[in-house]
Amino acid sequence: MAAARKTARERARLQVDERRAQLLDLGLQLFTDHTYDELSIDDIAAAAGISKGLLYHYWPSKRDFYVEVVRRAAGHLVERTAEAGVDASPDSLLHGLDAYLDFVEQHARSFTAVMRGGVGSDTEVQAIVEAARTAIADRIASRLGVTTPTPVLRTALRGWIGFVEAASLDWLARRDLPRDELRTLCASMALAALMTTGNLPDTIA
Amino acid sequence: MAAARKTARERARLQVDERRAQLLDLGLQLFTDHTYDELSIDDIAAAAGISKGLLYHYWPSKRDFYVEVVRRAAGHLVERTAEAGVDASPDSLLHGLDAYLDFVEQHARSFTAVMRGGVGSDTEVQAIVEAARTAIADRIASRLGVTTPTPVLRTALRGWIGFVEAASLDWLARRDLPRDELRTLCASMALAALMTTGNLPDTIA
Repeated sequence: MAAARKTARERARLQVDERRAQLLDLGLQLFTDHTYDELSIDDIAAAAGISKGLLYHYWPSKRDFYVEVVRRAAGHLVERTAEAGVDASPDSLLHGLDAYLDFVEQHARSFTAVMRGGVGSDTEVQAIVEAARTAIADRIASRLGVTTPTPVLRTALRGWIGFVEAASLDWLARRDLPRDELRTLCASMALAALMTTGNLPDTIA
Repeated sequence: MAAARKTARERARLQVDERRAQLLDLGLQLFTDHTYDELSIDDIAAAAGISKGLLYHYWPSKRDFYVEVVRRAAGHLVERTAEAGVDASPDSLLHGLDAYLDFVEQHARSFTAVMRGGVGSDTEVQAIVEAARTAIADRIASRLGVTTPTPVLRTALRGWIGFVEAASLDWLARRDLPRDELRTLCASMALAALMTTGNLPDTIA
């Protein structure tokens, strides 16, 4: 009886988690197509086909909802680049960059908004972005076989992520560079960063 | 008589400009030592030894004052790096980076605030930061003898500025890397960006 109650409770919990995830996926789509200011809580509830009250049941405000959408998007970015770039080979570097640029293209407006400020400059949003950068830098270091990066390697990796972000933003704004050239440029700069800090892997050097 | 009147008016105008400049310099100091939220209009007026009313005479709000302070700071950064790096030689690159890192160290807190968001994500503040990045990228291109950069050179320069910003922010947050190493890393990455895009100057190649 206790076990059955627990299962029912678990089932209810799972349904809530699933509903939340569905709403966040919808939010990801909505914030990809519209800016934060363009969307009201009414719009979001209408798009989800639920009442405003139910939406508020999950998140106390539009900002809270947005922060969770950004967290989910950042999670996707970290996962997809991880799946694409599995080792320290040049091919993995290129596949990882492809996954990054796919994400950037897919979420062009919201990526720009989050990176360039506006509501994206919200402290919590910035903390999510920072955590994603750290996760990507740590993963690259670990693929290089480095568990504790030296300060200069860590700085070089964080700098390189800054390069990729800035180059991507410029590319999104102008679109005057073939994506392949952007990818090659970012890959070359990664190798330069590793070479400069004496971390070029055997698979490349 | 008309000429004398004009002179008097000009003199008054100059005094106003000078007073504004003095207040902005004071603001630069205040926002270096304190965050935007820590400082009230009362604090700023008290530090300047003027009434709140007079301060409001120059700027309608704290935000407007702050935006002008950021504009002045960005102007200093562009000027100082221009004076330090006068040609396309490696020495100029190192001197330019020194001027940049001097600025970053001198305004550590406000640089981080502007770059990481918070009030720094204000649209107008971001436009000022963007204009400074463009000015620095254009100047580097012109020192290389390039009047209209190719898309790939422009992207590489904007990416490199992103590298320097991200590496500087990491350095300010951790301070576990000697400044000389940071400078060398940034200089090496500049040369890598130029080499990759086929723009390494004769003075270096």
